[in-house]
Amino acid sequence: MKIATHLERIQPSYIREILSDANAEGVISLAGGLPSSDHFPMALMSEALQSLVNTPALFQYGETAGYRPLLDYFHQLYQLNDQQRGIVCTGSQQGLDLIARTFLNVGDSVVVESPSYLGALQVFGIAQARIETVEQTSTGPDLDELETLLRQKPIKLFYTVPDFHNPTGICWSLDTRKAVATLCQRHGVVLVEDAPYRELRFSGEALPMVSSFCPEQSLVLRSFSKVATPGMRLGLLTGPAPWVESIAIVKQAADLHSSQPMQAVLLKLLSHIGFTEHLGSLCALYGARYEQLSQRLQQLGDGYEFCAVQGGMFVWLKVPGGDPMAIAKAALENGVAIVPSTVFYTLGAINEGKAESAFRLNFSHAHHEQLATAVERLKATF
Amino acid sequence: MKIATHLERIQPSYIREILSDANAEGVISLAGGLPSSDHFPMALMSEALQSLVNTPALFQYGETAGYRPLLDYFHQLYQLNDQQRGIVCTGSQQGLDLIARTFLNVGDSVVVESPSYLGALQVFGIAQARIETVEQTSTGPDLDELETLLRQKPIKLFYTVPDFHNPTGICWSLDTRKAVATLCQRHGVVLVEDAPYRELRFSGEALPMVSSFCPEQSLVLRSFSKVATPGMRLGLLTGPAPWVESIAIVKQAADLHSSQPMQAVLLKLLSHIGFTEHLGSLCALYGARYEQLSQRLQQLGDGYEFCAVQGGMFVWLKVPGGDPMAIAKAALENGVAIVPSTVFYTLGAINEGKAESAFRLNFSHAHHEQLATAVERLKATF
Repeated sequence: MKIATHLERIQPSYIREILSDANAEGVISLAGGLPSSDHFPMALMSEALQSLVNTPALFQYGETAGYRPLLDYFHQLYQLNDQQRGIVCTGSQQGLDLIARTFLNVGDSVVVESPSYLGALQVFGIAQARIETVEQTSTGPDLDELETLLRQKPIKLFYTVPDFHNPTGICWSLDTRKAVATLCQRHGVVLVEDAPYRELRFSGEALPMVSSFCPEQSLVLRSFSKVATPGMRLGLLTGPAPWVESIAIVKQAADLHSSQPMQAVLLKLLSHIGFTEHLGSLCALYGARYEQLSQRLQQLGDGYEFCAVQGGMFVWLKVPGGDPMAIAKAALENGVAIVPSTVFYTLGAINEGKAESAFRLNFSHAHHEQLATAVERLKATF
Repeated sequence: MKIATHLERIQPSYIREILSDANAEGVISLAGGLPSSDHFPMALMSEALQSLVNTPALFQYGETAGYRPLLDYFHQLYQLNDQQRGIVCTGSQQGLDLIARTFLNVGDSVVVESPSYLGALQVFGIAQARIETVEQTSTGPDLDELETLLRQKPIKLFYTVPDFHNPTGICWSLDTRKAVATLCQRHGVVLVEDAPYRELRFSGEALPMVSSFCPEQSLVLRSFSKVATPGMRLGLLTGPAPWVESIAIVKQAADLHSSQPMQAVLLKLLSHIGFTEHLGSLCALYGARYEQLSQRLQQLGDGYEFCAVQGGMFVWLKVPGGDPMAIAKAALENGVAIVPSTVFYTLGAINEGKAESAFRLNFSHAHHEQLATAVERLKATF
């Protein structure tokens, strides 16, 4: 049986493909977006996990929108208003896929930053959307370029990760947040704000979400893979009620609903008295690992640059030149897995020579000594 | 934001929409396909659930294909050969959705039985497939009609539930199984065999799966919602390796992977020494409930007919006439929820007058007395 025509060019994620190599004996992986499994909040989930056996009702079919007590909790936590709804998804990845499936016609235009989250490029590729890109500055997307684009083309969605961007780690400035919200409102563009790393801030002050300036025009994706655990596969999508209700119709056909026992465990974890402290220590841990990595990277010498980050999981290391894919393969042979910049760009951006020679380096998963050794190996590779 | 054009006609599942009404105080629901939550194998899952807290590795990101020990177990259990692969899905519903997304181009033709599983009609509707139908006889699909269809039109998939069909409860005869496999091979049609109820046999002898006669031409969907529990949301899709690998690329974008802690619990449940006994007592329970329901239904009088079933969860009650949707609403007002036949037919079949006046009645969820009362209420409604 032949694969559907429009999927012929879709490739499996390079990152997930190399994860098996990255897990090989002796390889230090800075490749994935893996949280530190040594610091999963197992103790805080203990009671919730133990009590599952006494709550068979959780194991029955549930509502498509999600486990009601969890939805009520999110309504309070994220201060949703009466016009807004939430839907629990099988990871925020599913939320993004459902947005694309629910609202995009073949050939509809979406805007993403360049570079952008690989999983989003895959989703929009499968949806057969036209992907337009806006270059990133150190404070967020290039506003002039964005405005020109929105003025010239009928754009349906602007997908973005404003807090500790994947892959660059950039955090948008307040002015950029307000300006983008205004542009979306002016041009009737829906902002899809993906916020998986927002809680992982280890320095500086939190800024308001972009969607807070244009809530009537926004869909927000939240992930519990970074602050809770990824294996549970739980995310949240919120937005104007009619949009979320349309999304629920597609989710019904996609998987009926997400795992209900896992949703009950997540609720008890998030509302646990010790959760704030867990989050604080997680941020401190990642902050320390980032410090270690950045100090080592500074020793790489001229031409090797990166923007300082205040949170998240990634550093974007620019290199003087060379084929990033070939260098990443050589690095893997030297025992360190990193992700070449090219996978985060559209083919269009690469062909126009707009792709930087760079690598995404993760600092949340490897420990101190591993980070030092990894940079040694990178140095040898470069 | 406007919903995508091709979704404008997709309606939420009637069944899931009325589930909230069906759960109202005093209403007896024969509407859903709910297993009996009083008989979930909680004791058999106890140790697995308790030990989750000690296995943080399960809470890390996992492989898209599924939790490796579970996949290995399935490989043995279902005796997959070297050319076959399995992929764990977020319920078998996701498996079906992924098949449609991976292989169907807009306008591709698929065949379903008439009537057919509502969730399949939704999936193929969203995929913008052309849905062809074949009428059902008491031994399976009408073979002459199927052969004519396959000869005249380029059909890509034949989707079916041969064991205790949803909604009719029919179980295909051995001859029909062989004949359909031969037809699929001859015409290059892929058989999608959905087998959620296969293990729920309470009388008669199990027959070989249809796909066993044409494995190189089949994709098989298995659900663990009926024999384990639905709230976990786990199903399995198996088939030829290249097809399953293509499906994995789409699943990666759809939700990365399914809940890994739930997969670990499922593995321990299925391989538990007490699981066979659990399954036996579940079949006995449903058999007894079916006996109770069928005895009562026989008292409804002339014109109210149903085919005897040997397993599964449903009886298909034909009635002398009237608008099934209106009758179902009246029944709900009288305190019993049933599903009108019309939701299981395509618009084409309804317009051609091919839809029977009937109702799908579930017998797995309500207990003995409720079943008796439900039929009393139905009698009053009719």
